Amino acid sequence: MAEPSAQHTMNASEMAAAIAQGTATSEQLVRACLQRIHERDSVVKAWAFLDPGRAIQQAQKADKHQAGGGDLGPLHGVPVGLKDIIDTRDMPTECGSDHFRGRRPANDATVVSLLRAAGAVILGKTITTEFALTGQRGTTNPHDAKRTPGGSSSGSAAAVADHMVPLAIGSQTGGSVLRPASYCGVYGYKPTYGRISRKGVFIISRPLDHLGVYGNSLRDLAMIADSLMVFDPADFDMQAPCGAALLDALNETLSSAPLKLAFVKGPPWALAEDHLEPVMQTYLRGLGERAQEVELGGIFDRALDAHSTVMDVSLWHNLSSYYLDHRDHLMVETQERVEAGRDISAESYVEATELVGSLNHAVDQLLGHHDAMITASATGEAPLGLKSTGNAAFQRMWTLMGVPTLSLPLMTGPNGMPIGVQLIGRRGGDADLFRVAKKLLGETD
Amino acid sequence: MAEPSAQHTMNASEMAAAIAQGTATSEQLVRACLQRIHERDSVVKAWAFLDPGRAIQQAQKADKHQAGGGDLGPLHGVPVGLKDIIDTRDMPTECGSDHFRGRRPANDATVVSLLRAAGAVILGKTITTEFALTGQRGTTNPHDAKRTPGGSSSGSAAAVADHMVPLAIGSQTGGSVLRPASYCGVYGYKPTYGRISRKGVFIISRPLDHLGVYGNSLRDLAMIADSLMVFDPADFDMQAPCGAALLDALNETLSSAPLKLAFVKGPPWALAEDHLEPVMQTYLRGLGERAQEVELGGIFDRALDAHSTVMDVSLWHNLSSYYLDHRDHLMVETQERVEAGRDISAESYVEATELVGSLNHAVDQLLGHHDAMITASATGEAPLGLKSTGNAAFQRMWTLMGVPTLSLPLMTGPNGMPIGVQLIGRRGGDADLFRVAKKLLGETD
Repeated sequence: MAEPSAQHTMNASEMAAAIAQGTATSEQLVRACLQRIHERDSVVKAWAFLDPGRAIQQAQKADKHQAGGGDLGPLHGVPVGLKDIIDTRDMPTECGSDHFRGRRPANDATVVSLLRAAGAVILGKTITTEFALTGQRGTTNPHDAKRTPGGSSSGSAAAVADHMVPLAIGSQTGGSVLRPASYCGVYGYKPTYGRISRKGVFIISRPLDHLGVYGNSLRDLAMIADSLMVFDPADFDMQAPCGAALLDALNETLSSAPLKLAFVKGPPWALAEDHLEPVMQTYLRGLGERAQEVELGGIFDRALDAHSTVMDVSLWHNLSSYYLDHRDHLMVETQERVEAGRDISAESYVEATELVGSLNHAVDQLLGHHDAMITASATGEAPLGLKSTGNAAFQRMWTLMGVPTLSLPLMTGPNGMPIGVQLIGRRGGDADLFRVAKKLLGETD
Repeated sequence: MAEPSAQHTMNASEMAAAIAQGTATSEQLVRACLQRIHERDSVVKAWAFLDPGRAIQQAQKADKHQAGGGDLGPLHGVPVGLKDIIDTRDMPTECGSDHFRGRRPANDATVVSLLRAAGAVILGKTITTEFALTGQRGTTNPHDAKRTPGGSSSGSAAAVADHMVPLAIGSQTGGSVLRPASYCGVYGYKPTYGRISRKGVFIISRPLDHLGVYGNSLRDLAMIADSLMVFDPADFDMQAPCGAALLDALNETLSSAPLKLAFVKGPPWALAEDHLEPVMQTYLRGLGERAQEVELGGIFDRALDAHSTVMDVSLWHNLSSYYLDHRDHLMVETQERVEAGRDISAESYVEATELVGSLNHAVDQLLGHHDAMITASATGEAPLGLKSTGNAAFQRMWTLMGVPTLSLPLMTGPNGMPIGVQLIGRRGGDADLFRVAKKLLGETD
């Protein structure tokens, strides 16, 4: 059990266990997190909205429920941060946009209801770039305040990395869950497309938007994701069943067969920083025969362009009304992103979307011979400066394909900044991906 | 057991049973069908390709297999007709187009492999309009040669209606399976989207193309569909599982609860012929309390336009290369269809496709209170003349939504021509739809 002064450093599984065993109360842990935020947020700037009184009230209610002998959900008493594009009925939801300043949704998003049902305490809302795009809102990297934490889930990744909260939800349309995980040195997970409801979440692209999660261990990701991966008919792009029983997968005895990973470079590596190749090669040498470089077929050369086409069209479709009616409310970065999709033909869009099935088919073939694909989670360390959130190239094609991806904080760059190892599975193969990650961590930790 | 001279009038279930029981051979039945075609096809013009010798060879092989004590597939020895957009390695596949005159595919389409595996005899290829669009290729309605059989699966529906073959496969992108079923007075079934592989089938619209089946009884449809609804990773729009166990559903004891059908008129009825309303009302009166008129919500007012947008975009996407390179090979009707999608924006296309989820959600809500929807299968009787294949308005929104539909030949128009009763279920609810149809036939036959 951590000392009270260090309770905020406990990960979510430790917090849940301590509460369940009575060695800590939810109120103590929530107060520890709030204290950490109080001390650090003037530098990190991870939080868009925080109401300490309301958070403590929720924790006290959880403790009272437990004292009364009530059943405990898997996240009972554990604080969680929410990217500020996720509607909450008791806190504002501003989507990082002046346009939504002070907006108070009437209802919780489905994921918020699921978190509450699992016993979680909603600690507050984390800073997002404007509309989850590229317009930065001031969050800094906890490891170096002169560097970006990445985006668009800037506050969620930074808050978990800085141990302000053990769990947070982010979203990914380009590379917005995994890239910040890589830059901030936390665990990040984007499930298969259509597995977490986006009802009550600000939508910028129905075919690309995914919710994802951050934590400080693989088990933490599984714990929160199992609570969130539930079919919701109100998100029209979900298909039952959605659950992947990730904790069950982690609790299984590992097979003794050696890991067989496909190191895939593919088109994104042309955009890597110079320092990435030696860092990755060092890591891969540690894996020995377990990782073998595999060429992705020529079809993948079209994946980044296809992602851009779908994203640009989606942004115009979903954001043009703001752009046309209140352009002056939008950051210049956002205006530029929205404009890009204005004149794209349906023909180009269909060509891009029809590539998705072919790419997934190619991955299915590849993963007939390998347990998962492995690569870096970003083009390099978090870049210096807060103007840009960095390059999403290492996520975009996996987002387009809707395959599950994990970022594990296992590498370090030349400036001492973290770089994630990215594991990629096949669509629907989320549990298998967690099995691979457990094995990788067990074998290389 | 039918007299040899009338063996061609047996339906598929009767043929399969007679072969299995040894009261008829596949060769006898195939010869009976070929004889019927020989007598009638100069009027009906249902067949694009027929090789009697090859059909008889297949039948003899089936009989020999049976004589040797081999296992019998569910369609053992039963002849089947294939719309001529479905690739066959041993017959030409011309897609109703001069452009493909004499084309010989190297491989069977997946559905052809599945039919052969189920023991079926591929009798021949049935006439399709050009590229399964609206350019007629001369097939007539077996009930009145001055009328269209409908299209685009003209030959498949006409051949089954004329008892030239007990089963045939068609395809539907607008209303091409159900409308010909209605006009020709046969049973027709279009499964939920993504349940029958289109690998090796000429694609005109990935989001809209469905394969479907024709027969002369509900059980016949179930029998052939069960053999075809199998996951195939080569059709990138399929998702496992695909099977619906339709025969099992028909073999269950019916529940005693009275049917509760929602009679839906919705936007297509504005396009109905004057004679349809009284014919439908007479049929509905026979159902009494079992059918109640239900208003579809305002969202359905956009469904027909949305279908047009998706279809037009798809046609340009898939057919523009033929149009641009060999326009003179295309029928004028086809040229006009292809041109329509040339200048549609991605924005319009996305708006149309995003409506699909909302429409399905509305249907799911409605079918929480009703067993199925019921309406007519076409705007009226088969129209006079062979220039037009009739109006697809009564199918187009269900095709867009990908919900399962059945046409049952239960009504007759003022000129004595058949009109189908259409049953519509929820996406994935194919077995339930067959249960409803069985009950409806039992109660009203």
